[in-house]
Amino acid sequence: MPKANHRLTPYLHLESRFKRVHVLRSITHLLRWDQEVLMPTGSAAIRADQLALLDMECSSILHSRRVALLLDKAEAGENALTDWQRANLREMRRLWHRANAIPKRLLNSLHSSTTRAEVRWRRAHEENNFSLLAPLQERVLQVVREKARRLGETLKCSPYDALLDEHDPGRQTREIDALFQALEKGLPPIIERTVQDQAEKPFIPFSGTISIARQRDLGKKLMRCMGFPFDKGRLDESLHPFTEGTSEDLRITSKFDERNFLTGLMGVLHETGHAMYDFGLPPDWFFQPVGRDRGMALHEGMALFLEMIVGRSREFMRFAAPWMQRIFGVSGPAWDAENLYRQATRVSKTLIRMDADEVTYSLHILIRYDLEKEIFDGTLRLKDLPEAWNEKYRQRLGRAPATAREGCLQDSHWPTAYFGYFPSYALGAITASQVYNGLIRERPEAFDAVAMGDFSGLFDWLNQRIYSLGSRFTNHELMEQSTGENLNPDLFLSYLRNKYLPS
Amino acid sequence: MPKANHRLTPYLHLESRFKRVHVLRSITHLLRWDQEVLMPTGSAAIRADQLALLDMECSSILHSRRVALLLDKAEAGENALTDWQRANLREMRRLWHRANAIPKRLLNSLHSSTTRAEVRWRRAHEENNFSLLAPLQERVLQVVREKARRLGETLKCSPYDALLDEHDPGRQTREIDALFQALEKGLPPIIERTVQDQAEKPFIPFSGTISIARQRDLGKKLMRCMGFPFDKGRLDESLHPFTEGTSEDLRITSKFDERNFLTGLMGVLHETGHAMYDFGLPPDWFFQPVGRDRGMALHEGMALFLEMIVGRSREFMRFAAPWMQRIFGVSGPAWDAENLYRQATRVSKTLIRMDADEVTYSLHILIRYDLEKEIFDGTLRLKDLPEAWNEKYRQRLGRAPATAREGCLQDSHWPTAYFGYFPSYALGAITASQVYNGLIRERPEAFDAVAMGDFSGLFDWLNQRIYSLGSRFTNHELMEQSTGENLNPDLFLSYLRNKYLPS
Repeated sequence: MPKANHRLTPYLHLESRFKRVHVLRSITHLLRWDQEVLMPTGSAAIRADQLALLDMECSSILHSRRVALLLDKAEAGENALTDWQRANLREMRRLWHRANAIPKRLLNSLHSSTTRAEVRWRRAHEENNFSLLAPLQERVLQVVREKARRLGETLKCSPYDALLDEHDPGRQTREIDALFQALEKGLPPIIERTVQDQAEKPFIPFSGTISIARQRDLGKKLMRCMGFPFDKGRLDESLHPFTEGTSEDLRITSKFDERNFLTGLMGVLHETGHAMYDFGLPPDWFFQPVGRDRGMALHEGMALFLEMIVGRSREFMRFAAPWMQRIFGVSGPAWDAENLYRQATRVSKTLIRMDADEVTYSLHILIRYDLEKEIFDGTLRLKDLPEAWNEKYRQRLGRAPATAREGCLQDSHWPTAYFGYFPSYALGAITASQVYNGLIRERPEAFDAVAMGDFSGLFDWLNQRIYSLGSRFTNHELMEQSTGENLNPDLFLSYLRNKYLPS
Repeated sequence: MPKANHRLTPYLHLESRFKRVHVLRSITHLLRWDQEVLMPTGSAAIRADQLALLDMECSSILHSRRVALLLDKAEAGENALTDWQRANLREMRRLWHRANAIPKRLLNSLHSSTTRAEVRWRRAHEENNFSLLAPLQERVLQVVREKARRLGETLKCSPYDALLDEHDPGRQTREIDALFQALEKGLPPIIERTVQDQAEKPFIPFSGTISIARQRDLGKKLMRCMGFPFDKGRLDESLHPFTEGTSEDLRITSKFDERNFLTGLMGVLHETGHAMYDFGLPPDWFFQPVGRDRGMALHEGMALFLEMIVGRSREFMRFAAPWMQRIFGVSGPAWDAENLYRQATRVSKTLIRMDADEVTYSLHILIRYDLEKEIFDGTLRLKDLPEAWNEKYRQRLGRAPATAREGCLQDSHWPTAYFGYFPSYALGAITASQVYNGLIRERPEAFDAVAMGDFSGLFDWLNQRIYSLGSRFTNHELMEQSTGENLNPDLFLSYLRNKYLPS
């Protein structure tokens, strides 16, 4: 073995090291899934040890002198590489930069401060008392600022842009500001008119309960129709829906409610959207950085496309209604496709992001993005956050939460140091509508076929244009190639107008 | 951190390295459990990569020059250590010897030859054709012989003893030969007389089916009564019952059959016996080699004690029958404690080891032990195995299998290179009866209390005498301390006579 290795190029040596990183990460995915789905409650300590050790093993590969030397050599000889190899080398360097910009001491501080803050956040949420969380949130913030400063120096960008880049490579505040300004202007009139319109068109609510076993059966049936490969994946149940794994073993969950089957179903669709992207990633590059997804905005876009655009369409409901009737054993006007569509597209000014509909959702994100920047740069002090939060909701949604639990304590992102993550959700919504535009322009029949339960054209197109490209291109290149232009908020706004305010 | 480390002794440095080995192994346990219980069928390739990588990480710790130096230094200064630390150091050296005796090339051959042979074994079993397996079994045998030779040189014992030592530290052929000769002589008359006696005392069979959900509920109820800590463990279902994990996250499975609830229940008891041992291991030494169990014969002994001696006792059935009636919703004479006891202690000359009862079970092992030694040293050629197998069954049980599937193809141990493992089962049976003797001598009321569902005295005693000692003593020391003498086959034979042939 060592003899053969001597003949490998520096680039190929790197491939074998990054393969190890990938396999270690695939184990981490499985442990996290298990932790959320079926780990005994008392096993948290050993699980934390296991995850920390896997992290350490990954770090020790990325921090090794040998990898640093190999990267330099491979880059010096990159003319001999194929396009995919060059893109892979770029992604390796990206991971290397991120890993080496942050000293181990800082990683440890990040880990310990977020672990404490998350536990405290649960209590603060339960007791509805933000001041319990504030001091620990302050500590997290200090560590995040130091991390962002160091990353910014390495990546040669502002600290906050360095945080954005972690979740959504190449995205910058300037671009997001412009996109979100357009939404800030365009969304409120759509929301107002839709709420008024819908008040005159009530839907028929269904009463009674649907067992969770039947809801899971329906979920699996629909997933099969969409091509979810159950020989490499599972559907389970957890407190919040999520997707974990790699395309070789990918597990999604949803949260089911006997009194409201629609939330469970939409969870299934959302996570199936994430999963289908992962399943479609380029198999030849499975173990390599270039074989990974192109960041969270696009990933969220793929999930929202399936949940919001496909799942909340008349075509989908025409296909799904008979399956609901059959698997749930129900009938009557509440289970009619048009009635189900009306219910799934209901717009309401909820104060809770996770309950928000397709139209108001991005407004919740805009609020968080504004506040997060102010908290990060220190303009807004944490003690003033609850009131600032309420004020933003008053301005944007016309109503404010009565409690912190319905307000700034509702999300766990900040206590767990996920600064720079929120924008992905709204960027994902814009992405989804733009992808939809591209699809119906090029393959209009593919969307119509959904009504007959035929998803093949739709996923073929997504596969060709997005999934199979992995991280071969930058985010901006990928959007231009697949949809003809960079993220355009007007496409999202017109999509909403066409759907919610048809003339 | 590095500064503080400089002050650590060589021994403490070793502890931190073996902690990493332990955490890596705990991850391996979880991946194996997942593989058997719920992994999607198409995910075998990535799972193999994951397991291989974890193995490699363990090996690289055990093969490092640094660990070799630290072991030498720690042993030179072992006078300064406590008894437990010295025992821990002995176990570290044991693991180090085993790891370093086998070169990486040989490990790879072992892995690839057994992977191929196991797949072929499944086909041979299905097609009932031993000649399909023979060539791949021959290859496995060659690799096992080389491994045993190298281990024997390192451990200064015969190659076959080196294999025995792997599963049951310190056990030697000479001792096993003597024990098994006593069983070979003592068991047949007990079997013959019991079969005759029982023919005159039929039991009332129950008819119908019991749903698997109810069988699981009963299993969990009984496990709770026995003190199985569900905050650190689970019960699931798989093709064969097994236990995987560590005392911080321990998962057992059973296989349930709607038409025969007794097999599922006995599987639950057997695996709970394994689990209670693991849960009772010394918590202060959780991450260290000395905190592990004292080998497979003792582990099997703990499982057989709970399944065969406790589970198939009148006391247990008096406690369990009302729970069966309540949870299964059944009644009538078939569900009477005495009738259940008769059924659970039924002796029959089955040809299948896994279906064997308490009395005949060890005979199946004796046959395998004889054949295995002959195969290993080349006296018996593989092509002659099926006939030799049948001949042994004819001699020992008075009947021979009609097919290879019921004969030498029934177990997967040999294709997967588990030579030296079979004796553990019969040694476990002897251990169990000896432990039972010790318990009723010292705490007779503890066994009686089982009838009232009180297992505390029983597990207290096991905990003090066996579980909590981990690998602090050698196998032989442990048996002498806990039961007053070394393994004694006469105790097992008298236990069987008292139970099955009461005068």
